This record gives sequence, C-alpha cells and structure tokens, in this order.
Amino acid sequence: MEAALSNLLPQSRVAPSRLHDAMRYSTLNGGKRVRAMLVFAAGEVTSADPERLQVAAAAVEMMHAYSLIHDDLPCMDDDVLRRGKPTCHVEFDEPTALLAGDALQSLAFQLLCEYRLADDPQAQLKMVQLFAVASGSRGMAGGQAIDLEAVGRALTLPELEFMHILKTGALIRASVLFGAHCGAKLEQEQFDHLDRYGKYVGLAFQVVDDILDEEGDSSTLGKTAGKDREAAKPTYTSLMGIAEARKFANDLLADALESVSTFGERAVRLRQLADFIVHRQR
Amino acid sequence: MEAALSNLLPQSRVAPSRLHDAMRYSTLNGGKRVRAMLVFAAGEVTSADPERLQVAAAAVEMMHAYSLIHDDLPCMDDDVLRRGKPTCHVEFDEPTALLAGDALQSLAFQLLCEYRLADDPQAQLKMVQLFAVASGSRGMAGGQAIDLEAVGRALTLPELEFMHILKTGALIRASVLFGAHCGAKLEQEQFDHLDRYGKYVGLAFQVVDDILDEEGDSSTLGKTAGKDREAAKPTYTSLMGIAEARKFANDLLADALESVSTFGERAVRLRQLADFIVHRQR
Repeated sequence: MEAALSNLLPQSRVAPSRLHDAMRYSTLNGGKRVRAMLVFAAGEVTSADPERLQVAAAAVEMMHAYSLIHDDLPCMDDDVLRRGKPTCHVEFDEPTALLAGDALQSLAFQLLCEYRLADDPQAQLKMVQLFAVASGSRGMAGGQAIDLEAVGRALTLPELEFMHILKTGALIRASVLFGAHCGAKLEQEQFDHLDRYGKYVGLAFQVVDDILDEEGDSSTLGKTAGKDREAAKPTYTSLMGIAEARKFANDLLADALESVSTFGERAVRLRQLADFIVHRQR
Repeated sequence: MEAALSNLLPQSRVAPSRLHDAMRYSTLNGGKRVRAMLVFAAGEVTSADPERLQVAAAAVEMMHAYSLIHDDLPCMDDDVLRRGKPTCHVEFDEPTALLAGDALQSLAFQLLCEYRLADDPQAQLKMVQLFAVASGSRGMAGGQAIDLEAVGRALTLPELEFMHILKTGALIRASVLFGAHCGAKLEQEQFDHLDRYGKYVGLAFQVVDDILDEEGDSSTLGKTAGKDREAAKPTYTSLMGIAEARKFANDLLADALESVSTFGERAVRLRQLADFIVHRQR
C-alpha cells in the first residue's frame, strides 16, 4: 500500500515541488490504513482484482489524508501533532497545507476515473459519484461542519451519531462499497449487508476513537490526547461514560459481524478488521 | 445558468444548513460565468445537448467558486471583498469557508459522474479525469502554489506564464474541452484546435486581469484593486508595462481566433467570447 501510494502521488521533483512534498508528507506518514484495508477486505467478498483494489484504496487514503490536513489547520482543530509528527501546516506552512489538501482531493478523483475499476464504465461512474457524495457536504465535509457548530454546545446522542455518520462513517462506508464494487456485480441484498457492515464499523471506529482520546496519552496515540474534552467537544465518552461507550462499541462490533455472516469465508478479512477497529489501542 | 446552479446546489434548509448557505453564497454571487459560457460555446462546435452542457458548466463554475473561496482565505490572499460583497470567510467564518470550498470541489465531481454527459461512459470517465488534472497539483492548485512561492520574488516571463497556465489556464482549457466533449466525437486535430484556443484564451484572461487590477478601481472591479502590486506579486503589467501587456493580450486574441477558424459558423460563440475576455472592463 505504501509503495502504491508513493507511485500514485506526484514525485517531489515535479513542479510545484513544495506542494508535492507536502502531499507526500501527509499521505505517506504511517497511518493505520484502516480505510485501505476495508477496501481490500470488501474486495475479497466479490473476488476483485487486487490491482483495482490498490487504486481504489489509494484514492480513499488520499481523500482521508486531505481531510486530516484541513482538520488540523489553525482555523479548525489547530493541531500541531499527527501520528507523532508535525502536522502539515507546521512542517510546511498554512497555505501549502491548504493547497495540499485541495490537490489530494482532486488527485483521488483523478485516479478513480483514470484506472479501470469496474467492468462496466457506467458502474464506475456511479461508484465515483457515491464516493463524491461521501466526501462532500452530505458526507465527510458536512460532518466536520456539524462538529464545528457543536463545540461547547450540548448534543444529544442522536445528534452526535448523525455527525459521526457523516464525518467518519461516510468515507468508511464508501471504502467498503467501493472495494466490493471492484469485483463481481453485487445483488441489492448483498449491497445492503455490506452497507450495514460499513455503517456499524464506521460508528464503532469513532466511539473507540473517543475512548482512546479519553484514556490514552499523546505518545501512544501519536496525536494530542484529551483534546476533545479540553475543547468541550461532545464525545461518546462525555455523553455515556467510558464503560457504556465500551459496551456500545462491542454491540456495534456484534452487529457488524452479523451483517456479513451470509458471506461466510469470503468475509473473514472484514470480520478481522471489525475486530481490530474495536480492540485497537491507538 | 443561475437557476441551474441554484437547483444543483444543496438547498439551505438541508443540514448542515450553514455550510450549504456558504456554498450557495459563494457560487450564486453574480460572477461573470466566463467558464460556463466557454462550456456552452464549445458545445456548439459539436452540437452538444444543452442539458448536458448545463451540468458541465455548473460543475466548472463550482470548481471555480471553490478556488476563489480558498484563495480569499486569510492564509492566502486575505481578501475581504469579492464581486462587491464580503468574501465567504468574512460573511460566515474561516472554518465554514474552508469546508464550503472543500465541499464544492466534491460536488463538482459528483455532478460530473451523476449525469450522463457523453454517449460513451468510458469517454465521460476520461473527461472527468482531465478535469481532475486541471484542478489539482498540476493544474489550478499547483498554479496557486507557484503563485505563493513567487510573492516578493522576481519571476521571468516564462515562469509567470507557466504559473498562469496552471492557475487560471488549466480550468479554462478544461471548460472548452469539456463542453466540446459533451457533443459529437472529436477528431484529434479538432481537439488540438480547441485546446490551443483554450490555452490562448486562458492566458489572455490572466493578462487582462492584471491590466484591470492595475488600471481599475475597487468599485468597478468588485474586488480590491491594486492588490497584486501592493503584495509585490509578479504580474504581466509589472513585467511588461501596461501598453505591452495590452498588445500581448491582443496577440493572444488573434491566435485564439485563428485556432478555431476551421470550425466556421459553429465557432461564432467561441470567437465572441475570446473578444469579450480581452475587451472586458471588469
């Protein structure tokens, strides 16, 4: 995955070098690659070509990297540490970070249109469209906007869930569906099973993030711990307490596993990943 | 065009409302719609379906609107006035402006994949890919990065031209090619003619922008005049002087007209637009 990302990103020597450096710095930074792994795992369900999955996974990781760069900017979360390294605007500068995020989004769409990812180009257009929805104002960017409005304000659990379904969940769901779509055509029922899996896993990911932010320390997390509480951001732990949040994450895991039970052995990676997402330590 | 944009943008009442308000505010703001007109004019060359052209034109205008929102941000040009109104981050706030730009880029790609814009879906994927290249690090965002690096530094004319071919030219060229691709299939030679037209017109657009910035006042321009000179940004007028820059723009106009001469009556709109771009007063 790291090699594929490195190949698909513009080389640093190509002008504008500083911008390309920043794009590479923020994408090739030792992320967990959960979204990429979800693409590959879902691709196993439909026996998708690994080369297609690699491009789709790279695009998803670039989209994720762009969102982190913009989230870390001074006008947003104003974070200086990401995965144990200076954030993009600290390592480079603010305008370069802004443009690196912008250009990573463009590059993700470029790759998704440039390579053949589905047998039927019309199906591929549909996939890219769904991916765009998952990234935009009714997906990731929209969730971020709701998150901003919520700072310092009391949110109900349903409001918190709506925010996270957009902010983190949409791209995770899209990763699962994109991976599956790279292979054999899905029946609507299978599509629904995978979509439910993606929804549960996406939410579980965020609940566990909140738990880790509350329990962890900065050196384990590779980012500033306790930041959400400090910023008076509503979280699952602040609304439920740690024990209840842990139980909720386990329930979501059970639901995710149940959703893909009909796929049998073809879903073994999806099951492993759901387990990893809920039991990870960082 | 304004009605089409209004329909294709998310409604304000849809959550997250403030984000959608900001996206609408910055797109429906009385821009000149030069890029949209180029899409329609190029579509006449290949007898393209006006409904297709409308979607393509809307996507191009959204991409343009996103780039202006981000260009105006405090960490970039820090501009408070755009088309006679407060810029997005002044009217709303910085994080909302950042996300509105991000989401407008996603929406542009969403529309380009959602609607049928070419008879052959494979050709449509190729078009969207070219559009992504024109927007990204080797297009608009890359030109902006070079522009930033150039502030306060002496640029040669070829360097200035390279910057503008990316920053403004890439999206204008893509507008022309996208419009033409919505219609009958182009021969490679015709494609090359249109691409040359787009290149000349894109460059002329920027040269005239520099002249207007130097000569104009803020009330006519609807944006802060003389800002480039103040920021010690290299411009055509600073490198050539106004008279030479005016002559250069007229030469580019002649080249643009020559490029589409083989299309005869079908290129009448393209000729009118080239003329408008060079002789506009704002």
